[in-house]
Amino acid sequence: KVSKEHQINISANEIIMTCGAAGALNIIFKALLDPGDEVIFPSPYFVEYFFYVENHQGKPIPCPANEDFSLNLEAFERAITPKTKAVLINSPNNPTGQLYSEREISELANLLQEKSKAYGKVIYLVSDEPYRNLVFDGTEVPSIFHYYNNSFVAYSFSKELSLAGERIGFVALHPEMENKEKIIDALILANRILGFVNAPALAQRLVAECAFEKVAVEIYKRRRDILCEILKEGGLEFIKPKGSFFMFPKTPIDDLKFCELLKEELILAVPGRGFGLPNHIRLAFCVPEETLQRMKPNFLRACEKASKLI
Amino acid sequence: KVSKEHQINISANEIIMTCGAAGALNIIFKALLDPGDEVIFPSPYFVEYFFYVENHQGKPIPCPANEDFSLNLEAFERAITPKTKAVLINSPNNPTGQLYSEREISELANLLQEKSKAYGKVIYLVSDEPYRNLVFDGTEVPSIFHYYNNSFVAYSFSKELSLAGERIGFVALHPEMENKEKIIDALILANRILGFVNAPALAQRLVAECAFEKVAVEIYKRRRDILCEILKEGGLEFIKPKGSFFMFPKTPIDDLKFCELLKEELILAVPGRGFGLPNHIRLAFCVPEETLQRMKPNFLRACEKASKLI
Repeated sequence: KVSKEHQINISANEIIMTCGAAGALNIIFKALLDPGDEVIFPSPYFVEYFFYVENHQGKPIPCPANEDFSLNLEAFERAITPKTKAVLINSPNNPTGQLYSEREISELANLLQEKSKAYGKVIYLVSDEPYRNLVFDGTEVPSIFHYYNNSFVAYSFSKELSLAGERIGFVALHPEMENKEKIIDALILANRILGFVNAPALAQRLVAECAFEKVAVEIYKRRRDILCEILKEGGLEFIKPKGSFFMFPKTPIDDLKFCELLKEELILAVPGRGFGLPNHIRLAFCVPEETLQRMKPNFLRACEKASKLI
Repeated sequence: KVSKEHQINISANEIIMTCGAAGALNIIFKALLDPGDEVIFPSPYFVEYFFYVENHQGKPIPCPANEDFSLNLEAFERAITPKTKAVLINSPNNPTGQLYSEREISELANLLQEKSKAYGKVIYLVSDEPYRNLVFDGTEVPSIFHYYNNSFVAYSFSKELSLAGERIGFVALHPEMENKEKIIDALILANRILGFVNAPALAQRLVAECAFEKVAVEIYKRRRDILCEILKEGGLEFIKPKGSFFMFPKTPIDDLKFCELLKEELILAVPGRGFGLPNHIRLAFCVPEETLQRMKPNFLRACEKASKLI
């Protein structure tokens, strides 16, 4: 399956089954990081990346994305230092729904190659892809494996197969990674001693049976379009998400205050500052269409209240 | 179930479901340890305890058990320092099959109480009990909860319900632990950010259905007795295990060499030095009786070869 999705020949020993993508990222960082090593990721970010890096004595370095949440290569270039051990990207992205293009990935890969050479050390690329199969409008997620040898993919089946809570995923690594055997051994040891030991056995059988099933992307696309319509009517600025089930619009007022107004209307949103970008909120559209339609008047009321506070 | 087994009233929020006992121990140490904090455990020990403590910047301190593998209180008393954060015990024990009596537990609890007071800090007691329901000869495993308030129990269902590989267990903490709420929060956060996130959902339902089922202890007792007979005939010294499915006999020659002789006879044993005690081996009797009977001549041949090397 990985070989097919990434159009590259990956053998079974280059894949380590894990307790979900969070487990996958933790064992990657446990295997790679020495104390003080830096891991760079674009901001806004999934807040738990801070913990995953700090768990293993690494230093998390957020690095601003562009206004449209695409990768900001200049910011990456400034952020990379001799202490950089890895760059972590997440596409489709949580919280923004952004998806990085082939050009962005290839430019990032070139930059990492250059910097690795300049500093005489490997800088790894880690791609967290739990939403890989949740993309809209006929787009596809480019595979980092085509652009960079020293790269890892962390995957979870929980979104694709709607197996929320089953803790089943994997790490795949590039078949031409430097010191591949040593790194595979380190990942397997990390998986064991961090206490994951193995991916849940029942769930392993389950995904073996249905790994080629597809999530009903059309359903999510319709939900996204409804939510976009509502935000437009409310007068909010936003980037239309290309994947995942999140979007990250700008708020007309302070994000904490706006979340409070939404809460009064029984709508749950997460303040953008939690993701490193205030005056935005994260909304999830993994709820039924009726729910989105029903919340529309409430959302518009909150926007109106907010406009009076500006 | 925990309330019943430990005869103490434990509420749902004092139990955190985890990805097995290894996951449980990792989140306990992540929640408790500051860098350099010491965790003491009896030797011989389960070798992964070293990793579980070091994962979270703790310092593992093995402390010799008595000759019969019971708890050596004097050794504990010498091992405890102002840097001691916790004592970790495992009863029934892997690798020895030993089980600690009520007297041993209560003396250890008194010692910890005394030392906590002397150093003006809490020293926690952590009990790793995956084999709690695998005990023989009508014995029962005393509950540490009756003797010590600042205590945790780490449990796994995988042995009791023969769910090997399903990664399902829990942490239970004493309802009268100091700063209980803060510690529960820390455990929940650690469970999340270490990447376990939650215990596998399917397995949670499974154990909810069959948590009161009992392992067929009689089967294991018969296997133990057969293995003890074989060891006696081979002239090996051993402590008869009271629980678990391990035993830890003395070897007539160097443990590595003895394991090689066994390997020539197609018998798999683990050298004692891996558990901190050379000139012993760990044998597992979680195999069918026929297998044990079939290996008897092989085992005796290995013992004879060894006797010629002394």
